[in-house]
Amino acid sequence: MQELKDRIVKDGEIYPGDVLKVSSFLNHQLDTELLDHIGREIADIFSKSKITKILTIEASGIAIAMAVSRYINVPIIFAKKNKNKNMSQDVYSVEAFSYTKGATNLIQVEKRFISKDDAILIVDDFLAKGSALNALTGIVKESGASLVGCAIAIEKVYQGGGAELAHKGIRIESLAKIKSMSVEDGIVFED
Amino acid sequence: MQELKDRIVKDGEIYPGDVLKVSSFLNHQLDTELLDHIGREIADIFSKSKITKILTIEASGIAIAMAVSRYINVPIIFAKKNKNKNMSQDVYSVEAFSYTKGATNLIQVEKRFISKDDAILIVDDFLAKGSALNALTGIVKESGASLVGCAIAIEKVYQGGGAELAHKGIRIESLAKIKSMSVEDGIVFED
Repeated sequence: MQELKDRIVKDGEIYPGDVLKVSSFLNHQLDTELLDHIGREIADIFSKSKITKILTIEASGIAIAMAVSRYINVPIIFAKKNKNKNMSQDVYSVEAFSYTKGATNLIQVEKRFISKDDAILIVDDFLAKGSALNALTGIVKESGASLVGCAIAIEKVYQGGGAELAHKGIRIESLAKIKSMSVEDGIVFED
Repeated sequence: MQELKDRIVKDGEIYPGDVLKVSSFLNHQLDTELLDHIGREIADIFSKSKITKILTIEASGIAIAMAVSRYINVPIIFAKKNKNKNMSQDVYSVEAFSYTKGATNLIQVEKRFISKDDAILIVDDFLAKGSALNALTGIVKESGASLVGCAIAIEKVYQGGGAELAHKGIRIESLAKIKSMSVEDGIVFED
């Protein structure tokens, strides 16, 4: 998606340690027009798929899911990140290590919100090593629902998370795929 | 807003300790159609006001802000809840005690996203004691921007947070105002 790539080049901030900050339009301040275009693009890509629910994860994922829901009008479930184990039998709970925060979170979804008859589209803002997406796809698998695929705004392809998920047969659609990134050389996208 | 009140009565879950769970439509699973109506209603209420940015707080607030932005097409800023002090001079940082989580968070917004020329509408899902809203209004005040008002989905009027903010001259608009609530007697709304 050229508009998103252009915006990443223009307003993305690269920091040492492989950090790409997109706080000015996707992660803290939200450019609602850009988000609307992201939502429409994701809906277009999955226009042939039957989708009954959108699954994402707090916090930034919620904005993308809301943008998609304008074009695919189904309920959203946002998974919660908790520090403490919820021992309830009624909650799917999967550990995920956050490289950004350097801590392990429990990704949790109440079981009653996903049934085996659901067809789930997962959306998120970033895909790097795939930690959050592995947790979300794991939850969908455990629920018995079908997984339509994953739609991601920005993928750091060189971190391998997307390839690993694709290798499991999961459809991954990323709107901006970063091939390499450094403070010195800036951002190079995949074609 | 009758549709929201009806939904709270139908699907809200009351637990001991003054807990109202709206997980099935506003806080974990999102009814995107209801959210759209909430967004339109808030935009209607503030239709005479000039608004340049919407300010909210992660996570559930993001969904409401996105719904409003469909009708008031301005950027959204979502404040972050952090555990650790960010000593940066570039961040507004205000302490807020979360009664739901029983912990103090630092509510943070990067200064570059609010200028003194901005006219800010604050939106959030819940208003009870007003802890989060006090933090957000404090940030707007510190920034020198003008505060148009606060739009809230559900206010627990009996907890007094709304009255306290209104007493400071802040415009508070809540779509569903709960006068009293108990497991035994259910929910009573203000007229």
